Amino acid sequence: MVPDLPSTPVGYQIRNPDFAEEVERVFYQAPFVRHLDFELVSFEAGRCESRVLLQAQHLQQDGYVHAGVQATLADHTAGTAAATLLSEGQIILTAEFKVNLLRAAKGEQLYCRSWVLKPGRQLIIAESELFCLAGEKAELVSKATVTLAVVDKR
Amino acid sequence: MVPDLPSTPVGYQIRNPDFAEEVERVFYQAPFVRHLDFELVSFEAGRCESRVLLQAQHLQQDGYVHAGVQATLADHTAGTAAATLLSEGQIILTAEFKVNLLRAAKGEQLYCRSWVLKPGRQLIIAESELFCLAGEKAELVSKATVTLAVVDKR
Amino acid sequence: MVPDLPSTPVGYQIRNPDFAEEVERVFYQAPFVRHLDFELVSFEAGRCESRVLLQAQHLQQDGYVHAGVQATLADHTAGTAAATLLSEGQIILTAEFKVNLLRAAKGEQLYCRSWVLKPGRQLIIAESELFCLAGEKAELVSKATVTLAVVDKR
Amino acid sequence: MVPDLPSTPVGYQIRNPDFAEEVERVFYQAPFVRHLDFELVSFEAGRCESRVLLQAQHLQQDGYVHAGVQATLADHTAGTAAATLLSEGQIILTAEFKVNLLRAAKGEQLYCRSWVLKPGRQLIIAESELFCLAGEKAELVSKATVTLAVVDKR
Repeated sequence: MVPDLPSTPVGYQIRNPDFAEEVERVFYQAPFVRHLDFELVSFEAGRCESRVLLQAQHLQQDGYVHAGVQATLADHTAGTAAATLLSEGQIILTAEFKVNLLRAAKGEQLYCRSWVLKPGRQLIIAESELFCLAGEKAELVSKATVTLAVVDKR
Repeated sequence: MVPDLPSTPVGYQIRNPDFAEEVERVFYQAPFVRHLDFELVSFEAGRCESRVLLQAQHLQQDGYVHAGVQATLADHTAGTAAATLLSEGQIILTAEFKVNLLRAAKGEQLYCRSWVLKPGRQLIIAESELFCLAGEKAELVSKATVTLAVVDKR
Repeated sequence: MVPDLPSTPVGYQIRNPDFAEEVERVFYQAPFVRHLDFELVSFEAGRCESRVLLQAQHLQQDGYVHAGVQATLADHTAGTAAATLLSEGQIILTAEFKVNLLRAAKGEQLYCRSWVLKPGRQLIIAESELFCLAGEKAELVSKATVTLAVVDKR
Repeated sequence: MVPDLPSTPVGYQIRNPDFAEEVERVFYQAPFVRHLDFELVSFEAGRCESRVLLQAQHLQQDGYVHAGVQATLADHTAGTAAATLLSEGQIILTAEFKVNLLRAAKGEQLYCRSWVLKPGRQLIIAESELFCLAGEKAELVSKATVTLAVVDKR
């Protein structure tokens, strides 16, 4: 008998009453993220979506999106998904991440959706999927797993 | 507007008419897999499920399932999911994998489901989710991403 | 000018006066490790070496060492290297690891050396190199990076 | 007896007589790399060193180097190390990478050294170490493992 297996967990608990302001702040505050023109699309407890309209500066020599842009969007969006679950006075630091580049990434927009796989007190594990949007078509171009440390702000 | 994003790809193509026999052979042929008493539960194009009934030999000192057992089941089941897509005369070799241990793993059974995320000619990327089953309860205990090389048998 | 870069850190501090007994206990205590016949070769602060004399049970169908055996030895030896740095009453849990299988692994012995790359209060990062020994020849067959959580025993 | 284990392989073979021009071209050609002001420091068969002088645009909100900058420099320098070993008409694509952020990264300069761990015909595995330089001090801040695919240019 194939057992009844849970899909990605839902029903995450929000601990910070000002989480929405805090999450927006976390997303846009990093100068590097503004330098890359990333945009926050939406978020809720344990999830975040973001995107970047692709310009020449995001590309490799061959016109495809640079792996570094993909890795940065995957990491930053996963960190923001984790940040939705923080208590006041806590911050998120990336401990490690792994990204698989699945196909050559080309299009007008790179779109990321991230969700928390395991919310822990000290470590939060999140995943990110990156899609290239070209016209009506959305194609999965990379997948990342991110380990985030929950740290008390000093 | 949030775009319409594809979920995990489906509709994989089977290339080897004898794929079912071949997949069973691939799963059980490794002496290490038999040494660990792994069982093939089911498979179809691009997917595989497997399990192991937990015994003392699979555990750590504290009674939880050893990370090595989880990694081995995740890798082997991902490899079998990839093997469903091979042409005759090809074999699968693991190039690399990463596994996140999400929680202490305890129960009667460790259950794995794996699916191909990207079927390539030279590389196949697959994911594995591992669940511990205890009574009626199934809990996600780890998640792995596996990069597999497609190689011509000599 | 090329700067003077530090190589792998040394001079780790031992915190537990009984660390030697504790490390031996940690290495051999897991039933799964005994089931696989792993042997502790040597250890010091922040480092550990181990091995396994290869038998049929460790192999894949083609006679090469199974990726799961390599992953398990890499993880377990990295965990033991980390355990040399614990204070009394602490234990090590693997949070995640990644292993690259570099070549087909064949020989009489699989040998692992692991070292701590970053000793943290909550997370210890270690690396493992695995060699296959065949006669006089030692060949690097895989490389792993392991993130370990330091946890208080209850 | 502790065996005599090889350290990181050396003596890699150069296949492209114009490899030096090609490597410089590969490093600087990507618009994203120029957007981030990365600099090629030195290279030889199987190795590459690079750096970036840190400016506000490379940072997170807290003044530390953004994980995405570190990941991008680690990936790009590993890819350039791999590119030293190509034959004419081949290019390098990143298949996947993993990076561990070891400490908060602060300083005037982020410096990367990368080397090939395994040169294969289809896959090249490389490692990158990233250091923050502050005054006379160089500190290891992250470590990456990169899997690169060797592809024929069309």
